[in-house]
Amino acid sequence: MTENRIFNFNAGPSALPLPVLKEIQESFLNYKNSGMSLIEMSHRSAQFDEVVNDTVARTRRLLNIDEKYHVLFIQGGASLQFAMIPMNLLGVGSSADYVNTGTWSTKAIKEAKLLEKKINVVASSEDKNFSYIPQNIKFNKDAKYVHITSNNTIKGTQWHSFPDTNGVPIISDMSSDIFSRPLEMEKFGMIYAGAQKNIGPAGVCLVIMRDDMLKLSEDLLQSETKTLPNMLRYNTYSSQNSMYNTPNCFGIYATQLVLKWLEEEVGGLAKMEARNQEKGQMLYDFIDGSNFYRATAEKESRSLMNVTFRLPSEELEKEFIGQATKNGMGGLKGHRSVGGCRASIYNATTMEAVEALIKFMKSFATGK
Amino acid sequence: MTENRIFNFNAGPSALPLPVLKEIQESFLNYKNSGMSLIEMSHRSAQFDEVVNDTVARTRRLLNIDEKYHVLFIQGGASLQFAMIPMNLLGVGSSADYVNTGTWSTKAIKEAKLLEKKINVVASSEDKNFSYIPQNIKFNKDAKYVHITSNNTIKGTQWHSFPDTNGVPIISDMSSDIFSRPLEMEKFGMIYAGAQKNIGPAGVCLVIMRDDMLKLSEDLLQSETKTLPNMLRYNTYSSQNSMYNTPNCFGIYATQLVLKWLEEEVGGLAKMEARNQEKGQMLYDFIDGSNFYRATAEKESRSLMNVTFRLPSEELEKEFIGQATKNGMGGLKGHRSVGGCRASIYNATTMEAVEALIKFMKSFATGK
Repeated sequence: MTENRIFNFNAGPSALPLPVLKEIQESFLNYKNSGMSLIEMSHRSAQFDEVVNDTVARTRRLLNIDEKYHVLFIQGGASLQFAMIPMNLLGVGSSADYVNTGTWSTKAIKEAKLLEKKINVVASSEDKNFSYIPQNIKFNKDAKYVHITSNNTIKGTQWHSFPDTNGVPIISDMSSDIFSRPLEMEKFGMIYAGAQKNIGPAGVCLVIMRDDMLKLSEDLLQSETKTLPNMLRYNTYSSQNSMYNTPNCFGIYATQLVLKWLEEEVGGLAKMEARNQEKGQMLYDFIDGSNFYRATAEKESRSLMNVTFRLPSEELEKEFIGQATKNGMGGLKGHRSVGGCRASIYNATTMEAVEALIKFMKSFATGK
Repeated sequence: MTENRIFNFNAGPSALPLPVLKEIQESFLNYKNSGMSLIEMSHRSAQFDEVVNDTVARTRRLLNIDEKYHVLFIQGGASLQFAMIPMNLLGVGSSADYVNTGTWSTKAIKEAKLLEKKINVVASSEDKNFSYIPQNIKFNKDAKYVHITSNNTIKGTQWHSFPDTNGVPIISDMSSDIFSRPLEMEKFGMIYAGAQKNIGPAGVCLVIMRDDMLKLSEDLLQSETKTLPNMLRYNTYSSQNSMYNTPNCFGIYATQLVLKWLEEEVGGLAKMEARNQEKGQMLYDFIDGSNFYRATAEKESRSLMNVTFRLPSEELEKEFIGQATKNGMGGLKGHRSVGGCRASIYNATTMEAVEALIKFMKSFATGK
């Protein structure tokens, strides 16, 4: 802990890299000698153009993708994407496959159904309370896309490899594990991520969309989706560098700094993955070796971002969370829909924080 | 000028009150002893609840409205509202009146038409290049609402009083003059404002919606608008205190501080209006008394937020803007669609800034 800051295990919005926060703070009244705060600056200025362009360039470098992938910043979070994806990509008679791995997948499925789009739920782990990632899924060859949630914050599961979909593009909600590891991008037609876990503050959603998916949406605009509002069309964003209207400038700027930190301080996604594996393994190893704490997700599906666990009783869990708070550790309560405990250890969570948590968990268990 | 900050006449995003920026900066690493930045904090926490609730309460106090008016925070700016309004409020067979006073009204009209909604453009000032606000408009008694743009940033015009619409609720885009003056709220069924001019940073749109309008949208959800995405329904926001999903937390927080400044430092909207009138009058008086500068909007329709003016030639305008920049005055270029010069003097622009601008304008004119 430095500067009276706690160890922050929030599930989102969540911990951001301290050097990023410090840079924002230092330049808050006068951004790069402009004489104004970044939040007082025109989004049509050369200085803000540079912010957007650099964020796009860093995204491409980190993921090792070229201009075939459009990098867009859209407001409304992943929840708006749940609607925009089927609205833009599914015409009459076409369908998509969805895999249901928990709350967020379920919401994406519900939204597509609300829109009366044809979708097939090709696999689900609901039978075991979403505690695992389904394997050996039979996908439909004629689906326009396969929708998955790469990491499930609430149940603490994560896809560790991505399925073979017979060439059908995968669209993944990566809100909670974007930039936590390198990706085989050729499998993905689109990935999207609300910024507020691994990238930056809430209010900006990063959308990375391949040419062919954008083309599919543009073809439909010529025929079936003519009445789609401009703000819900992907090409409104792709054709104007995400500045058809005023974007969330502060959110994009903070994202830029997080990506700079990833590139220049962490050293890229392979190194980020190694750090995340080390943190996750240390915490899971401790839990597995304990007869007091119990991890809730199946071993081979465990998330490196959200470590969900239980104590022997709900009473002890409540006491645990209360004492943790007093000891400078925040955000350890499980999601209100499932209870229990959860330590979210995203990119910005340091090894020091995980070590402190384990130390506290040991001492708490010993005292009981 | 303090701390190497310029006099900022940007049209939006634009100048914010310095005390607000300083408070954000000071608490950026540790918000109210929470041990984290506000942007690292769960939107489901008691501390963030307090931010939202206080912003809502301040909005109601400033505008002198009660709980009949719902105060919502929606992403996507005014541009998304251009679509959400007709999508939520116009069923088959019903129609709305629109008044066209410039670029933003035109966009709102285009969006409603794109959605194939029935609207009537009952008045327009396009005949004189949008240099005035139409008067004596004949409104349709059976319209569901009358849509206007209360202030037009590009042409520098503003509605100084609001029309009698035979009891039809007015919906106003107030992105560029919200909270600049008291309002007769009983005339309005809804007002909305992208935050980035008078309220805060870009990425949050304040929507104030009266019960009857919300009820109208809810009735339509039962019949004609059943397939409307959740993120585009007003009652998604009203039923969950704007937290159906993660909102733009930072944007709401900055808005809260701006409203606090309005209440506690300025002293309310009547005092804010007096300040704005004083600033506007001083600048217009100077321009009118000069034979070098010429104001472009018709006198009785002039905006107190955006003062648009021309110099004798485009060459001189270019030189003027260049020299102003060198003298620590930014954002004086007119909108790219119209050219000329524009000084945006929103709530946060100080009298000191206006005085400095006039002094510079005098000296520039004398030198020519």
